[in-house]
Amino acid sequence: MSQAGSIAASVPGDRPLIVPVILAGGSGTRLWPLSRSAFPKHLVELVGDSSLLQATAKRMLDVAPAERVVTIAAAGQAILVRRQLAELGSGFLSNLLLEPEPRNTAAAVALAAHQVKARWGGEAIMWVCPSDHLVLDVPALAEAARFGATVAATGRLVTFGIKPSRPETGFGWIAAGPALDIQAADGVHRAYEVERFVEKPPLAEAERMLASGAYLWNSGMFLFSAELLLSELESFEPSLAAAVSDVFATMQTSPDGLPDSIKFSQLLSTPIDKAVMERSRKIAVVPTDPEWSDVGSWRAIYDLLPKDANGNAVQGDGIVEGASNNLIRTEHRLVALAGVSGLAVIETADGILIGDLDDSNAVRGVVGQLVKAGRSQAETHAREHRPWGHFTTIGGGPGFRVREVSVDPGGHLTRQRHIGRDYYWIMVQGVAVAEIERTTRVLAAGHSAEIPRGAVHSVANNGTDLARFVEIAVGDVETDERIERFPD
Amino acid sequence: MSQAGSIAASVPGDRPLIVPVILAGGSGTRLWPLSRSAFPKHLVELVGDSSLLQATAKRMLDVAPAERVVTIAAAGQAILVRRQLAELGSGFLSNLLLEPEPRNTAAAVALAAHQVKARWGGEAIMWVCPSDHLVLDVPALAEAARFGATVAATGRLVTFGIKPSRPETGFGWIAAGPALDIQAADGVHRAYEVERFVEKPPLAEAERMLASGAYLWNSGMFLFSAELLLSELESFEPSLAAAVSDVFATMQTSPDGLPDSIKFSQLLSTPIDKAVMERSRKIAVVPTDPEWSDVGSWRAIYDLLPKDANGNAVQGDGIVEGASNNLIRTEHRLVALAGVSGLAVIETADGILIGDLDDSNAVRGVVGQLVKAGRSQAETHAREHRPWGHFTTIGGGPGFRVREVSVDPGGHLTRQRHIGRDYYWIMVQGVAVAEIERTTRVLAAGHSAEIPRGAVHSVANNGTDLARFVEIAVGDVETDERIERFPD
Repeated sequence: MSQAGSIAASVPGDRPLIVPVILAGGSGTRLWPLSRSAFPKHLVELVGDSSLLQATAKRMLDVAPAERVVTIAAAGQAILVRRQLAELGSGFLSNLLLEPEPRNTAAAVALAAHQVKARWGGEAIMWVCPSDHLVLDVPALAEAARFGATVAATGRLVTFGIKPSRPETGFGWIAAGPALDIQAADGVHRAYEVERFVEKPPLAEAERMLASGAYLWNSGMFLFSAELLLSELESFEPSLAAAVSDVFATMQTSPDGLPDSIKFSQLLSTPIDKAVMERSRKIAVVPTDPEWSDVGSWRAIYDLLPKDANGNAVQGDGIVEGASNNLIRTEHRLVALAGVSGLAVIETADGILIGDLDDSNAVRGVVGQLVKAGRSQAETHAREHRPWGHFTTIGGGPGFRVREVSVDPGGHLTRQRHIGRDYYWIMVQGVAVAEIERTTRVLAAGHSAEIPRGAVHSVANNGTDLARFVEIAVGDVETDERIERFPD
Repeated sequence: MSQAGSIAASVPGDRPLIVPVILAGGSGTRLWPLSRSAFPKHLVELVGDSSLLQATAKRMLDVAPAERVVTIAAAGQAILVRRQLAELGSGFLSNLLLEPEPRNTAAAVALAAHQVKARWGGEAIMWVCPSDHLVLDVPALAEAARFGATVAATGRLVTFGIKPSRPETGFGWIAAGPALDIQAADGVHRAYEVERFVEKPPLAEAERMLASGAYLWNSGMFLFSAELLLSELESFEPSLAAAVSDVFATMQTSPDGLPDSIKFSQLLSTPIDKAVMERSRKIAVVPTDPEWSDVGSWRAIYDLLPKDANGNAVQGDGIVEGASNNLIRTEHRLVALAGVSGLAVIETADGILIGDLDDSNAVRGVVGQLVKAGRSQAETHAREHRPWGHFTTIGGGPGFRVREVSVDPGGHLTRQRHIGRDYYWIMVQGVAVAEIERTTRVLAAGHSAEIPRGAVHSVANNGTDLARFVEIAVGDVETDERIERFPD
């Protein structure tokens, strides 16, 4: 442990320095069709106006400034992650690490540990949080984190244990052992030894554990010093530890800050629980009850939402008749339920799910079928995001296609041409600057532009408001093979 | 009975002349969202490639040429009814009667009886058929109709009794009495006295009737001479009989062939069953088993469709995972079912139903809610039909609206202008002739036209193929109040 590290990790009153680490690499197939591999659960506004990632990041501000929050996300989702974090404040972008591909949480946590050690010293306490959980009592969580950091500073790997409320078979459980001699100033929090971890138990065992009162849910949130995590990983998975160390070194010299993708792809793919937590003898658990949900199924979302007198939770344009205990979420169309109960009905622009609220495995099975069939709905949404904004295909038929295109303030589509189709743009909102065959035109709402096949064109939004136009493509609309793109 | 009538109603071999009468005024709220008041069940392609009206009309050709088929339909649906009948042959249009508003079946049947009597004589046997039922064994039905006409020619009001297959509580039942001394040449068909009619029985009674074997379902199909029907109506509902006679007279002198709408609106609204059939002492029933369905609920449709090994009937882009005994019908989007059973899932452009297959009352309740809320989905579809073709609103937002417009060969939109919005048309299929402020332009696929606000414009399709364009309206798109229409 370096002297510099010790100093950086100390704060007035001898409280350890907490560095939040947000794991934002998940997917969440059980929440299809809202969650998709290219637009996973933590980026979706599932409950309320923020995405789960944004809500997680905001929670961190109770214990650290934005500049001290490390986020580790998928490089393929960088545009969306950056946009969502930037909305909360640019500070969140100062420690954003991108993974070329998912390698599970052990590699991600170890990579983050190197970053934390390099910036704040090895004694700094990492507070590892999934990005796709929901917490309603944020002050209670922050208090537990501060107490947990004190425990972690005594040389423990700390896990948060959630007081269980049902015999959940989809979670890991923790058997708490004897109490440790560490106690919060207010006497509320205690830490315990961990007797054992129980991974996804059968229902009978879950019921027994719930009844006994001696078990907690494993929340997936951890606190430990960067140094201790790296040394424990070194003990249990020495080759992974060495490989991550090597990958971290490549990031320091890479021009785009990305790790070497070949080295990264060779990292052992294993969860931090299996690699370290379940094998270490330095584990402690801090029980906490911050009104936590893993938001891992439509049932979990349903439980979080307000309901009508018949137990229906309706988001969007839904009506119910003789129907009870259903979840309706509709974005585009009227959904009517007649005489049914216990359903999750989720309507999106290109796919509708009607599922049993309590059968999230069947939802995973749906995604599996879609993947096998090569269907786009498994991965992307009808609304496609681009660095400059997004577009939605709203109609079409043989020989034509209609899209709504939104260009963000400051966004621009690079120069391109297509030899097989004509384009028509009709501006419906804001102002855009179009360049068509080297002629520049300013398009305001109500203006239109025609781009004959073969014409080189580009468009930019130099204003501060959204620019939106309807694009009709006429001609060869089936393939994008004949698009040529040019540097600006 | 006029002598002329007697002659006209006779055919070689002394078989009575059969005049099919199709009642096409129904609505079918239990089949929402496919069936709507402006586009009712009999006009929808529910099973196979024809609408139920078209399938009914085609069935009639086994006993009469198209020119001898009388159809009575709602004037508000005249465009669609004419188009659908014309597809089968223009002969079907020669006896199309239009009702200004629905007044139930007694008035419709009596009006048709006047038409039949005037054209083919009072002895002609009317074969009254609902337009929204399905029959799989068409030859069996035609045979039963010919036999029924023989029975009707003996001075009976004949009803068809379907052999029941389940304790259906939504139908009327008929208790068959002693056999009549009329028998088909092949000995298969017999006719019976009617002991009594049982209207929509409770389940216990339906089960008892099914078990007894002495009851039949009332199919809603009847055979009687025009003369007898009119005289029985005169006996039981004399004022209705007189009023219909008066209304029929107004039709003969009306330039558009429509009955006087005020007189029509004052007709007693009652079913022919209540007005005549249940009160007459001249009733006979002919049992028949032509694989008939009233197609009156999603369950009835489900029963008619082929199913996969798990009992799922899937029309369109649907996938199922751990789901059984469901009906999926989707027109636009992927629908995925996960772990559910016994559902009707019906997806249309502007409304999605998820209903219990066995709870058609709940579907009616949905429509009731929509009507109460003044929602367009109760009445019209996203695709709106016009005399010249149809259009579908496919997108839009504040200040703009995107439509796909299809103009039929020979169709034309009359001259109009709007002072609050600009239009852009982009031709995507066929050829249209646009007139914009007295300038005529021929638009082929790939051409576009701009119609600034206030410009008088019209469009026509003079070709033989469909003409299709995308229309983007920019400006005041909320109301149609500022449209001025001009004569051509």
